[in-house]
Amino acid sequence: MATMRPSERAQLAMALEVCAGPKPGNVDRCHDYEDTRLEHFLASAIFVKPALERAERGEGGVGELIRDAVKLANVHAGGNTHFGAYILLFPLILGGDIAGAADIIRKTTVEDAVLFYEAFGLTQVRAHPTDDLDVNDPESVATIRREGMTLADIIAYSAPRDLVCREWTEGYPRTRRAADMLRAAPAAKGAIPAAFIELLAAEPDTFIAKKLGDAMAEETTRKAQEVRDGTLGIEEFDEWCHEQGANPGSTADIIIAAIYVALGEGWNWES
Amino acid sequence: MATMRPSERAQLAMALEVCAGPKPGNVDRCHDYEDTRLEHFLASAIFVKPALERAERGEGGVGELIRDAVKLANVHAGGNTHFGAYILLFPLILGGDIAGAADIIRKTTVEDAVLFYEAFGLTQVRAHPTDDLDVNDPESVATIRREGMTLADIIAYSAPRDLVCREWTEGYPRTRRAADMLRAAPAAKGAIPAAFIELLAAEPDTFIAKKLGDAMAEETTRKAQEVRDGTLGIEEFDEWCHEQGANPGSTADIIIAAIYVALGEGWNWES
Repeated sequence: MATMRPSERAQLAMALEVCAGPKPGNVDRCHDYEDTRLEHFLASAIFVKPALERAERGEGGVGELIRDAVKLANVHAGGNTHFGAYILLFPLILGGDIAGAADIIRKTTVEDAVLFYEAFGLTQVRAHPTDDLDVNDPESVATIRREGMTLADIIAYSAPRDLVCREWTEGYPRTRRAADMLRAAPAAKGAIPAAFIELLAAEPDTFIAKKLGDAMAEETTRKAQEVRDGTLGIEEFDEWCHEQGANPGSTADIIIAAIYVALGEGWNWES
Repeated sequence: MATMRPSERAQLAMALEVCAGPKPGNVDRCHDYEDTRLEHFLASAIFVKPALERAERGEGGVGELIRDAVKLANVHAGGNTHFGAYILLFPLILGGDIAGAADIIRKTTVEDAVLFYEAFGLTQVRAHPTDDLDVNDPESVATIRREGMTLADIIAYSAPRDLVCREWTEGYPRTRRAADMLRAAPAAKGAIPAAFIELLAAEPDTFIAKKLGDAMAEETTRKAQEVRDGTLGIEEFDEWCHEQGANPGSTADIIIAAIYVALGEGWNWES
């Protein structure tokens, strides 16, 4: 079996994540949302390739790569599919592994922050209502420049309310944990949904919190704990999530990063 | 919406085809085979990219590109997933459209034929029991060279027993017909399975014929006619195909080519 290039590994991680199921509340093999379907996630994984290849060659800063990735994925009208995944993947590709990613993050610049804001403005990602830095407000970029905020500063600012951002500030602990779970699983089949449930049971998903409020995010996590403990069926949980519109998108982003890391450490996705 | 490059269009065609369902007898969103799963088809679509890009730049002959594509897709252990699709796609990418593909096919060489045989030997594709040119027999390559057979000659030789090869000799009429059906469909959702059933109802699938015999291929086509005419449910037909192990792989290959052509003619896959 040939070795995968990092860009291919990232694409495969996105494909494996979206196909794995049941993955309660999210798009998977058996579930689409009205405006965002399985095919949109796969199209995004296909079209983002040039940005992944630039990262693989060490070209471009994190902010620029995320901006380019969002532009490339805008080839479809399925809305934001992988924004959080890009935030996690580009430092990993540029840095080589989790330790290297931390280094890349430490070295981000004000220019990275400005380009990231441009990317953010191209998505329909929800900002928290209390955010002072509104992406639709040109004043935000002026504030970033005036205060000399790097992309790491911006992300740290959002970290209390965003799991993906917390991976940046804390050195990818959830990614590490899920990657270890994948590698320890007896078979690849079922390993991704199991890691997904574990992460969701450990912490409320901040994508749900922003969309539906903290109480719903906490209830989703309680139910994930019941699934983990065997007192609730995963299919029943899935149905409940879809009824509520509770899609744990941040957790899915971290799972993509975890698959990417696990594949790089020799995890056999076909087992 | 940005324009797609031909290599991206080919990858999207492979992804859309495999995700569309129900697609009786084949791998789709709801069905895996034991050794070949949805993920294998997507991995193949991802890893074949370098060969698609070479074709897009007009580099390499058809035989070499098919050989390279098979090698690249061998990154997974899911067996042959897209061999027939590669045979159809590379002339289309090199030639620009169906008329251009015919020109590329006419100009294939003995060297293309030899490299194609190398590719064939790397797959687990079934040869017909009566084939004189056995890929496992080194004598076959000697025969090809001695008799000056081009790749077009080789494909013409297999055409009576292989739908994909018949597309080469006849100028892609099935691809054209299915592409027109996709473009005429009121919505993209459901259009791929409908085109699949139409092709299958029109002609027995030669992949099934080689695997299970002519009688089974003919029975599958009769049932596809019943689905088309509304006297048999598509889900019931799907179940029957899976029970028999009847997977219309040649028809699926042609559908991929049809999606590729339709996308190039502006078909909106998101409608």
